[in-house]
Amino acid sequence: MKNSVVRFSSPPHILYAASAVGGEEKHGPLGSCFDFHDESDKFGGDTWEHAEAHLASTVFSLLMKKSNMDHRQIDLLCAGDLENQCVASAEGLMAFGVPYMGLYGACSTSGEGLMAAALALASSEMQYAVSLTTSHFCAAERQFRTPLEYGAQRSPTAQWTATAGGGFLLGKEGGRVKISAVMPGRMIDSGIRDASNMGAAMAPAAADSLLRYLDSTGETPYDYDAIITGDLAKEGSSILCELLEKEGVSIKKRHFDCGMLLYDYDEQDVHAGASGCGCSASVLASYFLPRMQNGDFRRVLFMATGALMSPSSIFQGGNIVGIAPVICLEGI
Amino acid sequence: MKNSVVRFSSPPHILYAASAVGGEEKHGPLGSCFDFHDESDKFGGDTWEHAEAHLASTVFSLLMKKSNMDHRQIDLLCAGDLENQCVASAEGLMAFGVPYMGLYGACSTSGEGLMAAALALASSEMQYAVSLTTSHFCAAERQFRTPLEYGAQRSPTAQWTATAGGGFLLGKEGGRVKISAVMPGRMIDSGIRDASNMGAAMAPAAADSLLRYLDSTGETPYDYDAIITGDLAKEGSSILCELLEKEGVSIKKRHFDCGMLLYDYDEQDVHAGASGCGCSASVLASYFLPRMQNGDFRRVLFMATGALMSPSSIFQGGNIVGIAPVICLEGI
Repeated sequence: MKNSVVRFSSPPHILYAASAVGGEEKHGPLGSCFDFHDESDKFGGDTWEHAEAHLASTVFSLLMKKSNMDHRQIDLLCAGDLENQCVASAEGLMAFGVPYMGLYGACSTSGEGLMAAALALASSEMQYAVSLTTSHFCAAERQFRTPLEYGAQRSPTAQWTATAGGGFLLGKEGGRVKISAVMPGRMIDSGIRDASNMGAAMAPAAADSLLRYLDSTGETPYDYDAIITGDLAKEGSSILCELLEKEGVSIKKRHFDCGMLLYDYDEQDVHAGASGCGCSASVLASYFLPRMQNGDFRRVLFMATGALMSPSSIFQGGNIVGIAPVICLEGI
Repeated sequence: MKNSVVRFSSPPHILYAASAVGGEEKHGPLGSCFDFHDESDKFGGDTWEHAEAHLASTVFSLLMKKSNMDHRQIDLLCAGDLENQCVASAEGLMAFGVPYMGLYGACSTSGEGLMAAALALASSEMQYAVSLTTSHFCAAERQFRTPLEYGAQRSPTAQWTATAGGGFLLGKEGGRVKISAVMPGRMIDSGIRDASNMGAAMAPAAADSLLRYLDSTGETPYDYDAIITGDLAKEGSSILCELLEKEGVSIKKRHFDCGMLLYDYDEQDVHAGASGCGCSASVLASYFLPRMQNGDFRRVLFMATGALMSPSSIFQGGNIVGIAPVICLEGI
């Protein structure tokens, strides 16, 4: 079986990042880190789906402003979200007119987007590529579970889809963090069918990816300052550590999970923690990337985690398939 | 505005292609070209959604068989379909365990997959990548329009989502057709809101892509033996030619549309013609690629066309956004 680790001879750089979140995320422990928030979660949209589209365009505009760039300078935009047919990205980002690649990796799309953008920069004369992903709690609840008005009770393993978006501007040089390697994830089916227990469905994919990556590179978790998973949350993170320990690999002293960092478990009623491709993207953009830029972390593995399923696939008795692409980030 | 044409210094080759279709497609004019068909459209699945997943795995298995390769030799699998959250690809292809990138470009995913696979091969030590896309008439009808049992009347501009899948094995050398250039599409909104008139929504994107591509390369349509669009069908193809003629560009003598080739308009009740990312993928795999391999066509532009929308986006008054990535294929 191929591991497909791609080590770049000329690693693309992350030049700038931007993030925007809703009210719940602003009130969490990372609240002060984000570039923008809207307490109402609406971002100027008149439906939750339109709100997510506005969130996507807000993040893109922030990214252009922070980088002092114009959208006409961007060669490629890799984007995706959780809505059916990824319409939040299409609707929100269409007006910028940037050459576009739509991605679907569920909550792992934040990592998949960095990988796709990095591969495109490394193989062409393109100068600038953007990866941008969003998720929205209210749009996701009514699509994947029940509309909020229904007031369904949430199970302890349920996660709270973050109302959040994160974007990254990649270039060939000039940043303080480079993407030195990427590895696509494999789809892993662990037999989970409970759409309120995504952590359990995604953890085995994260374990598979990390073990394959370390096997290919001959490294150990201690070669990294941080091993960041996207949104395994409490349940999934504990399963990941257990699965790895069975293989003789301990990451406990290095492991961070964006889904466990976004909310305050004591104050916010988010059950197992956060999820969504906006969760991992916004936490990487606003919290980890600055810590790499200021030298707190030098070598980091970012593994966004995704659960590939749809309401129909669940209704028809399908399992939830996990996936976790790996991005190796290094300070310069 | 960037055009983002990527010309490969070491162009990836298309080594093998495979296709599988349902009964309606088998009875069309290209019926004898496909590698496999299932008259029942079920491919061994017990729901239409599972049928599409089985179709995807059938195409992948055919591709491995034709190329005498093993799935463990494949470095990357780029795939997508039209089902919510692209579950047909996930469910159908998971078991092969190939490193995976999920894509969503609606019916343009067949072109987007070739682009993503080519970019990955060109930027890394990966040896083999597969692009594979499917669509299924019955799964698409009940998701995007109405379940078949409802017996809704179809409008004259409506297209028939092909029950079809196509897969391509790309490698660094050894094929008779190379991907010499790719260009991502831009999202184009022409104000179309009728989900039964996808051709009109996609044609302006195809026109935009072709004009940008020709502008970047300094070429004319006559530098190509064929300019192939994915699934504009009758309505969209006529709009495309009109839009281009307004810009002084005539493609009529070079233009083919996969959506107009798949069915017999006189014998089959398919209204404007075929659609779906399985339409363009299967027609390229089974009809155009062999014609390039035997020398009928030397230089070809393949522009798969996609309509980025969801039932929710239509219900909420959104427009249907078109996109059309460009793939330049050359015989060797």
